[in-house]
Amino acid sequence: MPYVNIKITREGNVTADQKAQLIKGATELLRDVLGKNPNTTVVVIDEVETENWGMGGLPIEEFRKLRK
Amino acid sequence: MPYVNIKITREGNVTADQKAQLIKGATELLRDVLGKNPNTTVVVIDEVETENWGMGGLPIEEFRKLRK
Amino acid sequence: MPYVNIKITREGNVTADQKAQLIKGATELLRDVLGKNPNTTVVVIDEVETENWGMGGLPIEEFRKLRK
Amino acid sequence: MPYVNIKITREGNVTADQKAQLIKGATELLRDVLGKNPNTTVVVIDEVETENWGMGGLPIEEFRKLRK
Amino acid sequence: MPYVNIKITREGNVTADQKAQLIKGATELLRDVLGKNPNTTVVVIDEVETENWGMGGLPIEEFRKLRK
Amino acid sequence: MPYVNIKITREGNVTADQKAQLIKGATELLRDVLGKNPNTTVVVIDEVETENWGMGGLPIEEFRKLRK
Repeated sequence: MPYVNIKITREGNVTADQKAQLIKGATELLRDVLGKNPNTTVVVIDEVETENWGMGGLPIEEFRKLRK
Repeated sequence: MPYVNIKITREGNVTADQKAQLIKGATELLRDVLGKNPNTTVVVIDEVETENWGMGGLPIEEFRKLRK
Repeated sequence: MPYVNIKITREGNVTADQKAQLIKGATELLRDVLGKNPNTTVVVIDEVETENWGMGGLPIEEFRKLRK
Repeated sequence: MPYVNIKITREGNVTADQKAQLIKGATELLRDVLGKNPNTTVVVIDEVETENWGMGGLPIEEFRKLRK
Repeated sequence: MPYVNIKITREGNVTADQKAQLIKGATELLRDVLGKNPNTTVVVIDEVETENWGMGGLPIEEFRKLRK
Repeated sequence: MPYVNIKITREGNVTADQKAQLIKGATELLRDVLGKNPNTTVVVIDEVETENWGMGGLPIEEFRKLRK
């Protein structure tokens, strides 16, 4: 019955198969660590435009350039 | 002054009128049960791609097929 | 399969029965407007300390005094 | 290390520069008030369709017309 | 740089060690599936009172009794 | 009419006055950058136990020790 929300930037090429792996992995993690029932575990993935994601006070793409 | 967030999958044909009904219904629920002021109640609806929604460790469309 | 999150301030005396009414009402709303399955609808209520809730640029209790 | 989520309606013309200002401003606010480290502060902006945003029990555009 | 939010009910006895396993597992999942940098992956766990969590239109503890 | 959610760890000594500064600052930021109406801007602050917050695959307090 847990609820898991995964927020990532919308970039590269996140496939339906990779999303299925995230859903499977997060659900199994809750089952393995806390014994939660997979049938009632909900996972929601949000893909966020890179210009809408900030870190270090900068849009993420500028932040990455500075970190290099 | 409550804040209500409703997350549903983006599918079928959710019309602007149905969204207006969700906003009205959620706001009235908070007024009726807790006496909250409708004028300061905020409702935000998120529509999520079906491949981004998981249940039972599977993308929701696969989960539904197994449940049939 | 929808997910509903209701955020309210922790104040007055919200009883377990009132919370049950919010859960029932939100679930029925999604069933009535969009035909969503109640068995897989999740509702999570968050109660927030009044000093952690702001409106009009002020903590909510100060905002209410000004509005009177 | 704080996480800030800003939800606004998708309308008018929010530019990448304005989003960068929101990211910078929110990060500096946490640094100035609480001494939080900007390098680990995350800001995520969500733009929501106007028909998905409600206030006063109405979709936001109808609510605004009544308020005028 | 992903952000993961895990919501579970506050019950049983979730230890600091189990929370550490959830944080580690979620971070490794994002690294393994999408190549995300663990150093900038944030995980936040919310523990919710059982009377604040609903499923099937009922508080979760009543829902579980009916399912037995 | 924006909604801002600020998540921080519950530690040190965050006073009611500091929270009021966060509410004021976030509301003014939205007004200054996007012309949003302060009267309908909502700010919610969540304080999260340190053992519930992870970064770099570790609970935040362990992560900080390694970074020193």
